[in-house]
Amino acid sequence: MTTTQEPREGLDDLPYNVFAKACPSRGTLEHVTGRWGGLTLGALYEGSLRFNELRRRVDGVSEKMLSQTLHALERDGLVHREAQPTNPPRVDYELTPLGRGIAERLLSLIHFVEGRMDDVLAARRRYDETRGAR
Amino acid sequence: MTTTQEPREGLDDLPYNVFAKACPSRGTLEHVTGRWGGLTLGALYEGSLRFNELRRRVDGVSEKMLSQTLHALERDGLVHREAQPTNPPRVDYELTPLGRGIAERLLSLIHFVEGRMDDVLAARRRYDETRGAR
Repeated sequence: MTTTQEPREGLDDLPYNVFAKACPSRGTLEHVTGRWGGLTLGALYEGSLRFNELRRRVDGVSEKMLSQTLHALERDGLVHREAQPTNPPRVDYELTPLGRGIAERLLSLIHFVEGRMDDVLAARRRYDETRGAR
Repeated sequence: MTTTQEPREGLDDLPYNVFAKACPSRGTLEHVTGRWGGLTLGALYEGSLRFNELRRRVDGVSEKMLSQTLHALERDGLVHREAQPTNPPRVDYELTPLGRGIAERLLSLIHFVEGRMDDVLAARRRYDETRGAR
């Protein structure tokens, strides 16, 4: 399958389309934007981390969920798992070049959202007041 | 809200931080990157749509899930709901300027992922083969 990446107008030429239910790109998009996948990619963008370091950085994730998240990202080729031959074994996780490309775009979205939260919270207050009144 | 997180070049000036469990930005990020929220924002980026048009565009979404998704996006101030005084009433959904800013960044991520799916699928095959062997 060949990729012909083009401006937005020509996107229907792409062989993959997240708007189609059966397209595998939808699953990958979910891995990278899921609750823990996105935060994991964002955390690893700053540099490689060990499992427990990652767990502290991604506040609120359980050991099981982080493990599942890392497996999905590793399988998609976005995260590289490096086991050091030490005793006890030391395992580092880092982004692959592909994972970095995705994390960059995700962080651009994250920072935009963080920077607009005052507006979002003001909109929520207005919405809740209006709904209370009608 | 004050953030006491480690260096992230300049970003620590921001009062909101998705890496903190209790930060409201995490909820908004989930609304815009959730399975249906992201696709809904992406679909509306092309122009305003009626409910049923949206439902056809976001392949696989149920009426109930689309309705919940639109409410969350409207409450966050990302989607505007315009009820026309016709009979039967006609309701259009469109992005607010804030929603457009978010959708742009989300679409950049979506198109990047769609454009790299050959690599992702090749990585999955390698991963599954290696795991089968060990």
